Amino acid sequence: MVECSDYRDLVEAIRGMKIRGAPAIGIAGAFALVLGARSIKEKDRGSYMKRLELIASEISSSRPTAVNLRWAVDRLMRKAVGDPEQIPDLLLSEAEKILEEDIRTSISIGLLGSDLLEDGDAVLTHCNTGGLATGGWGTALAIIYEAKRKGKRIKVFVDETRPLLQGARLTAWELSRAGVEAWIICDSSAPYLMRKGMISAVLVGADRITRNGDFANKIGTYGLALAANTNGIPFYVAAPTNTIDPNLEDGNDIPIEVRDESEVLSFCGRRIVPEGIRAYNPAFDVTPGDLVDALITEKGVVKRPVREGIKGILTRRSNLM
Amino acid sequence: MVECSDYRDLVEAIRGMKIRGAPAIGIAGAFALVLGARSIKEKDRGSYMKRLELIASEISSSRPTAVNLRWAVDRLMRKAVGDPEQIPDLLLSEAEKILEEDIRTSISIGLLGSDLLEDGDAVLTHCNTGGLATGGWGTALAIIYEAKRKGKRIKVFVDETRPLLQGARLTAWELSRAGVEAWIICDSSAPYLMRKGMISAVLVGADRITRNGDFANKIGTYGLALAANTNGIPFYVAAPTNTIDPNLEDGNDIPIEVRDESEVLSFCGRRIVPEGIRAYNPAFDVTPGDLVDALITEKGVVKRPVREGIKGILTRRSNLM
Repeated sequence: MVECSDYRDLVEAIRGMKIRGAPAIGIAGAFALVLGARSIKEKDRGSYMKRLELIASEISSSRPTAVNLRWAVDRLMRKAVGDPEQIPDLLLSEAEKILEEDIRTSISIGLLGSDLLEDGDAVLTHCNTGGLATGGWGTALAIIYEAKRKGKRIKVFVDETRPLLQGARLTAWELSRAGVEAWIICDSSAPYLMRKGMISAVLVGADRITRNGDFANKIGTYGLALAANTNGIPFYVAAPTNTIDPNLEDGNDIPIEVRDESEVLSFCGRRIVPEGIRAYNPAFDVTPGDLVDALITEKGVVKRPVREGIKGILTRRSNLM
Repeated sequence: MVECSDYRDLVEAIRGMKIRGAPAIGIAGAFALVLGARSIKEKDRGSYMKRLELIASEISSSRPTAVNLRWAVDRLMRKAVGDPEQIPDLLLSEAEKILEEDIRTSISIGLLGSDLLEDGDAVLTHCNTGGLATGGWGTALAIIYEAKRKGKRIKVFVDETRPLLQGARLTAWELSRAGVEAWIICDSSAPYLMRKGMISAVLVGADRITRNGDFANKIGTYGLALAANTNGIPFYVAAPTNTIDPNLEDGNDIPIEVRDESEVLSFCGRRIVPEGIRAYNPAFDVTPGDLVDALITEKGVVKRPVREGIKGILTRRSNLM
């Protein structure tokens, strides 16, 4: 547990991935802005807003790929009206609303997505998309939890997810607490399992989805989509609609974060690669929308080709539970 | 450096992957049989041979996937003729011949394969296929060394190769000693680099090749082949012809070694996955021959479709340097 009372600590926690997962960093970014708003000493609205905008942009840019962070901060900024003294409370109430909505979004995604899984399925997942990545039960993992609740026996193969091992550390922990049978595999063995017929469906989250259905997600997702497609295995993406960036036409425009090479070169503080060797460490990749069989959002399931359905889902009214 | 004077220690070194790489374990297996032959106390040929055959089968089965191990042991067994007292020396001379041939095989593969690379190429490789995997300079890595010797500037992206990190530990070390520019990447990011146009060719080794060109290699190879194919990047396999198993029609018949789950669950002796969670740890996968653009052997380069050319290469006389 990390407690932050200074917005800078929270920004640092986001940047250092103490908190991660697109929906979770959206929520954390919103609360960071509340802390930031509270810290501003300026009394007149002009100076106050100038300072607040600086803080907002500092938070928004702490991680570049997931759009939820900017989406949440922008949403709060639209509430920053009137007397500066009232602004922190206005922002707090909006941040709480975002958190609440995210919890209900998890439930909706779980309910809608669980219909796609059948009793006895073996699901492959990547990275962490559960309670540790969202305000609620998760996105892709919420679907598995809900399928289990409905009595479907689901076995999960979890990519360990190098370099930071979110699958081995976080998803394994969540699934074991939920009593779901989980097997860790090396990321590179997923295509082999698919070819052997050991996987019924691939279920991942997303950090940013563009208008044509292309999406950024944890590095390794693109290779999974290729292998699923080749082997006729359904490939599902679960994400809240606030992960869709209506400003971007396709995945080429998504900024991909390249993180520090030490994440690859060292392990538990111990260097594993000879000195003098560099590493290239992109944290995300982009998967073309035409490899996606279904996009599962809180507003509904968009089936292939997802590019056709995304416009409709963006304008659809919420059917949150 | 590990010195073994008892064949059982050498078998243990092969099983525990202190020595690994298909050609290297073939050579090690041959010398293990020499040590084994020397250790036999029985004087009459019948008892001697019974004992030698037991040792041979113990060595052959120490690792199941690479065919070179069985190939080398079988080759030595054919020399075990006449008086038991002479057999150790007969085997030693054959083992030395295998080592010598492997060194020349490395040179041939390097020369033939280096023509496929161009000045300025960025090559992606997986696992370790260099001097630490063979008796000579390697298979896939020998090609890079030879291209460099010819004055071609080659940059290499090296998959770290989970779970045992042969890429990060061994290939990185070899390339750095050879003065080749090397970048470590997480295995799962290779498809992303291919899609971004950062890779000119993929170059891997093989542990067993079947008659139709299907081949087993370090887990993760199949996913690389899919991504290379989708992105129009040439996918090359470099291996000596003794890696071809003329008894197997296709890759479905290759036995795939599943190694201990502790290789995935722990790291440097530290458990990284919550207790109670299992891992599935296949050490190899099978790549269909129709994803291979060229198979580079010491006897020549077999171009796509490789299934057509494999019969020819098996019957071709050696053109070893």
